[in-house]
Amino acid sequence: MSFPNYGQALFKPMKQERHEETNVNLYYFSDFERHNAEIAAFHLDRILGFRRIPPVIGRLINVIKEIKEVTTDHKLVTTFFNSPVGNTCFHGHCSYYCSTEHAVCGRPIKLEGSLAVMLPDLSLAPRHSWRSPWRRSYSRTNQAEWETNSNYCDTVKQTPPYDRGTRLVDVIDMSILDFLMSNMDRHHYETFEKFGNDTFLIHLDNGRAFGRHSKDEPSILAPLVQCCRVRRSTLLRLRLLSLPPYRLSDVMRASLSRDPLAEVAPLLTEPHLSALDRRLETVMQAIQDCLQQHQHHSDVIYDDIMDYPQA
Amino acid sequence: MSFPNYGQALFKPMKQERHEETNVNLYYFSDFERHNAEIAAFHLDRILGFRRIPPVIGRLINVIKEIKEVTTDHKLVTTFFNSPVGNTCFHGHCSYYCSTEHAVCGRPIKLEGSLAVMLPDLSLAPRHSWRSPWRRSYSRTNQAEWETNSNYCDTVKQTPPYDRGTRLVDVIDMSILDFLMSNMDRHHYETFEKFGNDTFLIHLDNGRAFGRHSKDEPSILAPLVQCCRVRRSTLLRLRLLSLPPYRLSDVMRASLSRDPLAEVAPLLTEPHLSALDRRLETVMQAIQDCLQQHQHHSDVIYDDIMDYPQA
Repeated sequence: MSFPNYGQALFKPMKQERHEETNVNLYYFSDFERHNAEIAAFHLDRILGFRRIPPVIGRLINVIKEIKEVTTDHKLVTTFFNSPVGNTCFHGHCSYYCSTEHAVCGRPIKLEGSLAVMLPDLSLAPRHSWRSPWRRSYSRTNQAEWETNSNYCDTVKQTPPYDRGTRLVDVIDMSILDFLMSNMDRHHYETFEKFGNDTFLIHLDNGRAFGRHSKDEPSILAPLVQCCRVRRSTLLRLRLLSLPPYRLSDVMRASLSRDPLAEVAPLLTEPHLSALDRRLETVMQAIQDCLQQHQHHSDVIYDDIMDYPQA
Repeated sequence: MSFPNYGQALFKPMKQERHEETNVNLYYFSDFERHNAEIAAFHLDRILGFRRIPPVIGRLINVIKEIKEVTTDHKLVTTFFNSPVGNTCFHGHCSYYCSTEHAVCGRPIKLEGSLAVMLPDLSLAPRHSWRSPWRRSYSRTNQAEWETNSNYCDTVKQTPPYDRGTRLVDVIDMSILDFLMSNMDRHHYETFEKFGNDTFLIHLDNGRAFGRHSKDEPSILAPLVQCCRVRRSTLLRLRLLSLPPYRLSDVMRASLSRDPLAEVAPLLTEPHLSALDRRLETVMQAIQDCLQQHQHHSDVIYDDIMDYPQA
């Protein structure tokens, strides 16, 4: 979406009600994208202290005045129609989920959506896209190597750029974020090329998180479980968010309440917030298991804050 | 679906949970088909005394043993897959709603479906397909003539075969059936050619009925409202089904409870059953309005049971 004088933002429209859970028979690569997942992922990433997801905010859009009447995409205009109950809908053109049957509809013309900050143009700030070592197969039948080889992390640890610096614990941070929000769709992450290999990761495209609150997906934690490594700063933050006064669900609820769409309805339903607490316990238990399996704490804990007293 | 030694039946699989209502932004021609609508339509038609829908019964099918392993359709076999939760799913090949995203899934291999009696082969008993005079436009933008012309019925009444015999009141019976079950998809009806024009109608394809219980669709009643004609036998039956001991919802609940799938879950949820009573009141009121607009009862009531005392 382009704004005169303000540049662009990435818009994702609402396609699913907040209380709806993703159909259990849908594969992660066939799931819908959720605008509230994009927003909630930004908040969660910030609360975890990572700050690797560019800001995302909710907006109510007037689909006629702010899209149909001003777009320069004539093909998009032809896909607008009035639904049987008088809502203004459109579906655009794309390879799947773009049809009357899967239209995006205003109520009657106001549509919820997420707007994500666009990163600087690739010509100004080229980015490297890294295939995640724990990428899924994106196939109904094939398994990825990490799903069957329990020593998979040994190989990763010897492979650049995971053989030095913080890249491995960065990916493990990412897996903790993704497990908490149940995002199975993290096939790639990005970095800014100008900063070389010793730089922070960027986590784009979180629309398939928060699909189901009633189920956890342990395989997302594979990087942590298989490598048994975690940043001390991350562990400290997770511990803090396990304590009653800073409980993750409470901090998330408070943080999300500041989004403009919270006026319409809470960005995450209570079952999704409770799932965060339940999954955080699972992460803490996984780290505990690692500590018991290893003789030295330093085998597990990557100390990125040595000047501070031991956690 | 073919059965060795028993001929064939028309199978429609479950695609939607009983409590789910059709998305309000979907047009009637984009709606899913519902197996329980096929079953409930058969029961309703019988309870109304029409008996114009061939028998439909519910069945639990083993999708592996009764479909995958025995089908001769090799293309169908290739669309079988296991869903993330281990259910066996398939989608077949068709022009829309046939994809992984819209697969039909067993739990884990048992699938609910409706089986409708197949009529005799068209070579043995050819049928005539009649376009309904009150057919919808099947377009998002165009309206049918009957939607804008309030004198539309005058034209229909002068057009064969509606100008004589019972054809007009047959179509009005059909509109009452369709209004009660909120079926907007009645574009055609059929007759057996051998019986000529003075014969009963056949109402096939009722899978898009019972999509929404919270909303009624008054336009389905247009034939009754615009023509102000109704069979006396139909009126008597509707009156009976308005009385507490024979309340339509109670009779339907009792009738549907004898279907094999009622063991899994009621074929229609209570809100759908209540909607039947509410819509029946609307039909009775429409007939009452007709009687008040016309001087003679016989202008409205088509007396098909003259030997019986006046209703």
